[in-house]
Amino acid sequence: MILTVTLNTALDLTYDVPKLVPHTSHRVGDISERPGGKGLNVARVLSALGHETTVTGFAGGSTGAVLRELLAGHSPDGPGTPAPGTAPGTDPAPITDALVTVAGNTRRTIAVVDRTTGDTTQLNEPGPLVTADEWTAFLGRYEELLAGADAVALCGSLPPGIHVGAYAELVRPARAAGVPVLLDTSGEPLRRGIAARPDLIKPNADELAQLTGSRDPLRATRDARRRGAHGVIASLGPDGVLAVTPDGTWQAKPPAKVLGNPTGAGDSAVAGLLSGLVEGLGWPDRLRRAVALSTATVLAPTAGDFDRAAYEELLPRVVVEEHAPAA
Amino acid sequence: MILTVTLNTALDLTYDVPKLVPHTSHRVGDISERPGGKGLNVARVLSALGHETTVTGFAGGSTGAVLRELLAGHSPDGPGTPAPGTAPGTDPAPITDALVTVAGNTRRTIAVVDRTTGDTTQLNEPGPLVTADEWTAFLGRYEELLAGADAVALCGSLPPGIHVGAYAELVRPARAAGVPVLLDTSGEPLRRGIAARPDLIKPNADELAQLTGSRDPLRATRDARRRGAHGVIASLGPDGVLAVTPDGTWQAKPPAKVLGNPTGAGDSAVAGLLSGLVEGLGWPDRLRRAVALSTATVLAPTAGDFDRAAYEELLPRVVVEEHAPAA
Repeated sequence: MILTVTLNTALDLTYDVPKLVPHTSHRVGDISERPGGKGLNVARVLSALGHETTVTGFAGGSTGAVLRELLAGHSPDGPGTPAPGTAPGTDPAPITDALVTVAGNTRRTIAVVDRTTGDTTQLNEPGPLVTADEWTAFLGRYEELLAGADAVALCGSLPPGIHVGAYAELVRPARAAGVPVLLDTSGEPLRRGIAARPDLIKPNADELAQLTGSRDPLRATRDARRRGAHGVIASLGPDGVLAVTPDGTWQAKPPAKVLGNPTGAGDSAVAGLLSGLVEGLGWPDRLRRAVALSTATVLAPTAGDFDRAAYEELLPRVVVEEHAPAA
Repeated sequence: MILTVTLNTALDLTYDVPKLVPHTSHRVGDISERPGGKGLNVARVLSALGHETTVTGFAGGSTGAVLRELLAGHSPDGPGTPAPGTAPGTDPAPITDALVTVAGNTRRTIAVVDRTTGDTTQLNEPGPLVTADEWTAFLGRYEELLAGADAVALCGSLPPGIHVGAYAELVRPARAAGVPVLLDTSGEPLRRGIAARPDLIKPNADELAQLTGSRDPLRATRDARRRGAHGVIASLGPDGVLAVTPDGTWQAKPPAKVLGNPTGAGDSAVAGLLSGLVEGLGWPDRLRRAVALSTATVLAPTAGDFDRAAYEELLPRVVVEEHAPAA
């Protein structure tokens, strides 16, 4: 089982409008609702790849209830939707809901898609205030779940009330239990989390620059390793990923640039890395999978889904180059 | 009891953002949630004025459940909020929930308030698809409720699935039961509804122009009467209202122009008109109340609430002039 942690889960709403004009009124056309937050997105891709996944973190209030009903595979307000990227006849692996209930209301995020330009305007609620007792309850649940986990991903922003060193507190027991741990967050929670020596981090160029002060990918990635991360997979957008690990340094690139919506591409890369790890693949194959999945996510018509046919077509065509060891 | 009908109820969300910039991401600051749709807004003002009110229409799904919990006076996700305009120590009259449950999900509306400019960008979901059986169930409930009603307000847009002549179907039994009926809608539903001869309509200048083709308030208002409305109260924004009724023609104006958010001002005017009617006030006093309430709504810090102190101060200062009878 792969465990994903989403401390600030979200009910993700997508609103389709003909054209977004500030300070006017808009009739929303199509609406979609789905469970969100990075760890839940990672779990959805893992499930589509056939990996049993357990999700934990917090959910509460009326939006938390809708999120959990959607996660259980049935919409409270309409027909169920199949898991993304699920080929006809392919059953996705189960996603087990091990979320901890909180008193506050799970946040909504709203992606307003302008049909004229295809651009998205994002409105993100802050999330519920998590109490000290709720955090303690979560830590207990997390340590139980680690016992059965082959790998764990710690994903996304912290909700109000959670201390900024929270991810360090979650990295340590994973390391102690020998469960490979990937940390995917940004800003101060990333800086603090790295100090607890996670196996992997997966920053994008902006997150890496914020952490290290450098915009040079190789220099910044090596700096991030010195700060405590055993391996760093820097996502370079259309240029693929740069991986600096104890076993070597690689760059993996998609065969061609693609146009589309990059929402969720990073979460698909995390799913690719973790699934490859638990399947015992070597670094080149893990990176190939991460890059093919994130490119197939950019290509998918629905933000955050991945296009399975594109994934299968791209996988053998991802170019992986090994760099010479650092001097 | 005053009955208000809201066929397309809404969970109204207000999002506070520092500045709305299309195609970027925004962290929402303050969030407020409340039951919405014009008839529910009218009921809230009637309640604050001490009038027992019953609300009907449709509610369904998870958002409908939140709306009904908020309507019952307790927030599902946080502490309860007092009724707007309720002075300390004044108990609002009860609002009875007689909404008909539908299978679809009650719509959300999102008002994104730009803290820099104070302007609002509105995103309105379309609402649930109401089935023929649900409409029939509603008609039965409506006729039962009419038996105990002193007046009825038919308010707002129609949800998907409801035929455009629906308001005519609701005006007729009210007229047959001798219950004064006010219709507050726009476009084709207004045009069709007027033909069933409601006692009152309350269009704004745009709605009136759309109905009659004329931007001259007196001409358009008289034309609207010829189309079937017994009385027409045209709201002229900062210029108050023009009332053309079987008993005479009046114009009522606030004592001075005010700056603020006009959201909900029309609903407050409807509450003023209906409360005055059931209290047996003459037209000048009803109009005075409607204008004072809508002006006090523009002045309130929260959109759609009214400022009670401003209302009480404005009420004796509204200027009402009777026009000479039409030639």
